[in-house]
Amino acid sequence: MADTQRVAIVGGTGYAGAELLRLLAGHPEAEVVAVTSRGDAGTPVAEAYPQLRGVIDLEFSVPEAATFADCDVVFFATPHAAAMHDVPALLAAGKRVIDLSADFRLRDPALWARWYGVAHACPELIERAVYGLPELNRKAIAGADLVACPGCYPTAVVLGFKPLIDAGLVDVSTLVADAKTGVSGAGKSLKPGFLFAEMNESFKAYGVDGHRHLPEIRQVLGDLARGDVGLTFVPHLVPMIRGIHATLYAQLADRVDLQAVFERAYADEPFVDVLDAGATPETRHVRASNMCRIAVHRPGDGDTAVVLSVIDNLVKGAAGQAVQCFNLMIGAPETRALAAPGPLP
Amino acid sequence: MADTQRVAIVGGTGYAGAELLRLLAGHPEAEVVAVTSRGDAGTPVAEAYPQLRGVIDLEFSVPEAATFADCDVVFFATPHAAAMHDVPALLAAGKRVIDLSADFRLRDPALWARWYGVAHACPELIERAVYGLPELNRKAIAGADLVACPGCYPTAVVLGFKPLIDAGLVDVSTLVADAKTGVSGAGKSLKPGFLFAEMNESFKAYGVDGHRHLPEIRQVLGDLARGDVGLTFVPHLVPMIRGIHATLYAQLADRVDLQAVFERAYADEPFVDVLDAGATPETRHVRASNMCRIAVHRPGDGDTAVVLSVIDNLVKGAAGQAVQCFNLMIGAPETRALAAPGPLP
Amino acid sequence: MADTQRVAIVGGTGYAGAELLRLLAGHPEAEVVAVTSRGDAGTPVAEAYPQLRGVIDLEFSVPEAATFADCDVVFFATPHAAAMHDVPALLAAGKRVIDLSADFRLRDPALWARWYGVAHACPELIERAVYGLPELNRKAIAGADLVACPGCYPTAVVLGFKPLIDAGLVDVSTLVADAKTGVSGAGKSLKPGFLFAEMNESFKAYGVDGHRHLPEIRQVLGDLARGDVGLTFVPHLVPMIRGIHATLYAQLADRVDLQAVFERAYADEPFVDVLDAGATPETRHVRASNMCRIAVHRPGDGDTAVVLSVIDNLVKGAAGQAVQCFNLMIGAPETRALAAPGPLP
Amino acid sequence: MADTQRVAIVGGTGYAGAELLRLLAGHPEAEVVAVTSRGDAGTPVAEAYPQLRGVIDLEFSVPEAATFADCDVVFFATPHAAAMHDVPALLAAGKRVIDLSADFRLRDPALWARWYGVAHACPELIERAVYGLPELNRKAIAGADLVACPGCYPTAVVLGFKPLIDAGLVDVSTLVADAKTGVSGAGKSLKPGFLFAEMNESFKAYGVDGHRHLPEIRQVLGDLARGDVGLTFVPHLVPMIRGIHATLYAQLADRVDLQAVFERAYADEPFVDVLDAGATPETRHVRASNMCRIAVHRPGDGDTAVVLSVIDNLVKGAAGQAVQCFNLMIGAPETRALAAPGPLP
Repeated sequence: MADTQRVAIVGGTGYAGAELLRLLAGHPEAEVVAVTSRGDAGTPVAEAYPQLRGVIDLEFSVPEAATFADCDVVFFATPHAAAMHDVPALLAAGKRVIDLSADFRLRDPALWARWYGVAHACPELIERAVYGLPELNRKAIAGADLVACPGCYPTAVVLGFKPLIDAGLVDVSTLVADAKTGVSGAGKSLKPGFLFAEMNESFKAYGVDGHRHLPEIRQVLGDLARGDVGLTFVPHLVPMIRGIHATLYAQLADRVDLQAVFERAYADEPFVDVLDAGATPETRHVRASNMCRIAVHRPGDGDTAVVLSVIDNLVKGAAGQAVQCFNLMIGAPETRALAAPGPLP
Repeated sequence: MADTQRVAIVGGTGYAGAELLRLLAGHPEAEVVAVTSRGDAGTPVAEAYPQLRGVIDLEFSVPEAATFADCDVVFFATPHAAAMHDVPALLAAGKRVIDLSADFRLRDPALWARWYGVAHACPELIERAVYGLPELNRKAIAGADLVACPGCYPTAVVLGFKPLIDAGLVDVSTLVADAKTGVSGAGKSLKPGFLFAEMNESFKAYGVDGHRHLPEIRQVLGDLARGDVGLTFVPHLVPMIRGIHATLYAQLADRVDLQAVFERAYADEPFVDVLDAGATPETRHVRASNMCRIAVHRPGDGDTAVVLSVIDNLVKGAAGQAVQCFNLMIGAPETRALAAPGPLP
Repeated sequence: MADTQRVAIVGGTGYAGAELLRLLAGHPEAEVVAVTSRGDAGTPVAEAYPQLRGVIDLEFSVPEAATFADCDVVFFATPHAAAMHDVPALLAAGKRVIDLSADFRLRDPALWARWYGVAHACPELIERAVYGLPELNRKAIAGADLVACPGCYPTAVVLGFKPLIDAGLVDVSTLVADAKTGVSGAGKSLKPGFLFAEMNESFKAYGVDGHRHLPEIRQVLGDLARGDVGLTFVPHLVPMIRGIHATLYAQLADRVDLQAVFERAYADEPFVDVLDAGATPETRHVRASNMCRIAVHRPGDGDTAVVLSVIDNLVKGAAGQAVQCFNLMIGAPETRALAAPGPLP
Repeated sequence: MADTQRVAIVGGTGYAGAELLRLLAGHPEAEVVAVTSRGDAGTPVAEAYPQLRGVIDLEFSVPEAATFADCDVVFFATPHAAAMHDVPALLAAGKRVIDLSADFRLRDPALWARWYGVAHACPELIERAVYGLPELNRKAIAGADLVACPGCYPTAVVLGFKPLIDAGLVDVSTLVADAKTGVSGAGKSLKPGFLFAEMNESFKAYGVDGHRHLPEIRQVLGDLARGDVGLTFVPHLVPMIRGIHATLYAQLADRVDLQAVFERAYADEPFVDVLDAGATPETRHVRASNMCRIAVHRPGDGDTAVVLSVIDNLVKGAAGQAVQCFNLMIGAPETRALAAPGPLP
């Protein structure tokens, strides 16, 4: 068993923070010693998240140096452009940082500034950050002191396209990712469009002309393809809380047994499950779980590959992936605290 | 004002039948004289559909010749492979028929038999049927005595692709239609997958390897393109009752002002509303209404056109379109009984 | 036909305002000439409510004297404590006012101030206001120039208890109203509790220790009972947009045929529908409709009467009731613009 | 640590069975060796419940003597009137049985027959069964070989009323239990009313004139009150999958500090959480968890006590309660495999 780590969560009032608390509550090598929230300092965590009554006995605290003094690992579950202000001091103090926000995902600070509307506060650290997708970077994550966890859409889309691109099977200039998400990815944002009365019994696309996850996906797929990729990415909002379903389309350059390609690609991955030929994953099959379930189809035996990839945006798309990285970093089994199946129905 | 028509609805217990009753209840030139249902004969219609208490004072009756003797127009809101058995006699008796089912949509009876699993009962009548999409066939519908109303997916997909294909702007060999539907399109089918406990808080694709609406869409798009089209069609089930959202992808052969193309194409259509540039339609914007609302985008000013097309599957995708055809057939204004906006939220 | 009325809607951006627009769009004797919203002045109404594209061709305007100068009737669909500031001048100018907010519902200004947290701006007008429940006050409404439309809960609860109290059948000291509502009653309030992610797949009570509709219900039931009533009122929030279901419990003082009592009480009411014995109403049976559907039960032939009363909170509980009052006030048929059945499913 | 038990689940295709599998998958002293289903024998369990892929590696088997030969404990998650046929032989063979169905809940076989429509198959065993509500019968459960787990409604209602009745504080002749449930309590029944299209955006009461859980609740409350109780029980269906919210009303005979009464009553219970004064529980606060959360109110400081009691119907109302009983029976800590908090949102 790895040494127990003293852990802090910055920005614990959001959904990713709550999910981190749920997962870490069952982690034998993690002791959560601080959960910060400027706005709610002094409030018991279990008042904000009554499901944690009797489980988490902490109050939200102010995020300041003293809070983190005796921590080993700090998770950031903050909105973008927050972590980058605190990370330099934490690294300097020898802490390891797992950032669930967008601050260290893009390698190009200019590109980051364009999409996030503000200059990056510590561009010199970006290169030090390891992109926290274990299926790509397992070894680097284990040795990292700064991990940039992927966005939820990128996780679902990249895991879906990866075997096709790795095997050189598709035309990477005309990729299409039609993605659908539950609303919890937006966090607790008080925007009219996220009200129940505006969302139930309705479905819509958004961000068609540009979504912040687009450059991230392009960067990662471009790495896989060793060159630029042409990707059309259209996100949609589903009247549900959790879950992402990415439907991916690619023109096949070659006719091979796609099922075998996918099964081989993910044979050893604990959190990628390739379904049997012909199956279709449902987002509830991964609810509250760290699994990504994938099916690959070639409709009508034609030239188009269709990949269906589902994750829980708050788990494999956020908190679960962060715990998976944490496990790698501390030398614990990769599935620690992540093995329990989710409830269904 | 056109003459009042005596109208019968065959298969009135389904959702399309109920929606027909709602719409025709407000139609000054339609008098519903019979609503048939073998299984529920003798039951008041308003017992099955309590929203119609005080509005419809009929009982379900058995569909037999006497029932239709003094009708002018017969609507079929039956499952597939039912109308084809009754239509020949009705046409012979001088009735006009509006079929909401699939029986007369495909021109090729062999293709029909392959997708619907049974031989067609009256292949000789297929050619006589007019495909009931007013935006394609307005004039022919007006003179028809047998109208085959389109499926719900084909309506949303065809209206979305039509301006692009008509103008010769896209490569028709790599079209993608990623479509999402509420569950009412499946009617009241007692299948486990349609239970609330199986559907809420979940999203999935289905029929990836073949859906009955695929050959119908291909036939209509092929007519527009004057040749075969290559179409990948993936339907998905959204946890909502009503609404279809089709997200359409096409590779542009030419760079023109797509917004202008769409606005021009539908300038005179009463039930196709092209949104302003940059907008995104939501299915609730057309709930309980006969409108199709469409937006066209070219993300990143690239080579891919993205069209978003929404309808209410039970109205423009079924009962409303049938009434629109009915209006054309009897010489009433095309918007009769279809002009009321739907409730929102 | 009554003379066409020039109508203004104050506070048109909320859900009740939108529903008023939908209903009045089909009203032959109402011409909506102004829809006001301080925050959205200049914005097309149809931009806020895309379902009204092509139906309402107005922009939101600023609520000022000139706006109302040539109006006959002004509807207030504002939050509480707004109408009371504008109503005196409008009445002085000879306009008739229909207030959907709470400002003129309670007869006691001190009680009003206690529940709404601010002194009433024109207590002298309260007595002039007629409580706009046609089933109680039909005649007075017809002659009124200031109508205070009831709250949504009071409408459902009062219509359910009325026949029992009128007939002196129940102990009015131990009434229980367990009420459940969809979220649209809260309007577009940007509160965390109304987010989809906080509401879906959950159910809760709220306001157990006091809800603003409690004194209103007590006042009206007290009028019926000619004395104080003891009422326990517990509202609950259902994960749905529209609909109120009130489950009412009363101890019977007498054993009579409750079904007959209810049928007789509402025999002539166009918008109260007493279901057959044994039936249970569902909120979807009144969705988008002005009907109140009621069933009365006596479980186990015991001493407790159970009344189930459902309405659409935005229609019979708000905009529809306002239009019903409007019809009475202008001498139009009471059901004008309110007769269309709602869509189901 | 208690000895590992070899466990079988009869009727594993339903939701309670699936939830048992989820909970027992994390139970160190339970080894599930058989999951039976006549209809699905031979099918992998994980095909029916894809969330269990990689977790449960069993196929459904036929329920026959050989299946149970080497089991220690058999759980029945069958519909009513099934377990009673198999239990006698199992007890005779020395197995211990935990029945989640209704077969051994009512002490009076004639009453049972009246509500379940069939004669009881082994009335002689009813007395041997211990009612599996640990908060009532902890000690007896520990020593039992046949446990009859309570229904979901009875669990929520009894835990809510118990402190009031135990303390003799209320008039037990006029109790009201207004209960609301998600649909999963009905299992996977293929009835039209449970379809998504019939349930979403709607709310209704059902079983007003008699529900099978009524005699069960009466029996247990009668035991507590040492005499007959008068209870009006009205269940309602909420458009959600999981959760029960019972709103309980009782006339107070005495004015004491109800909050203190409840806190004292449940001070030592691991799975009953009395909220702070003034709070209101939400069903999502107990989702996928074995907790019952309770709040007690006295609105307006009047004579009516209002108790709000929430559980997850599939956990504390079914599978979780069964595991809690199992823990007591085998001498494991009562919270074993039940301590993990549920996901929220």
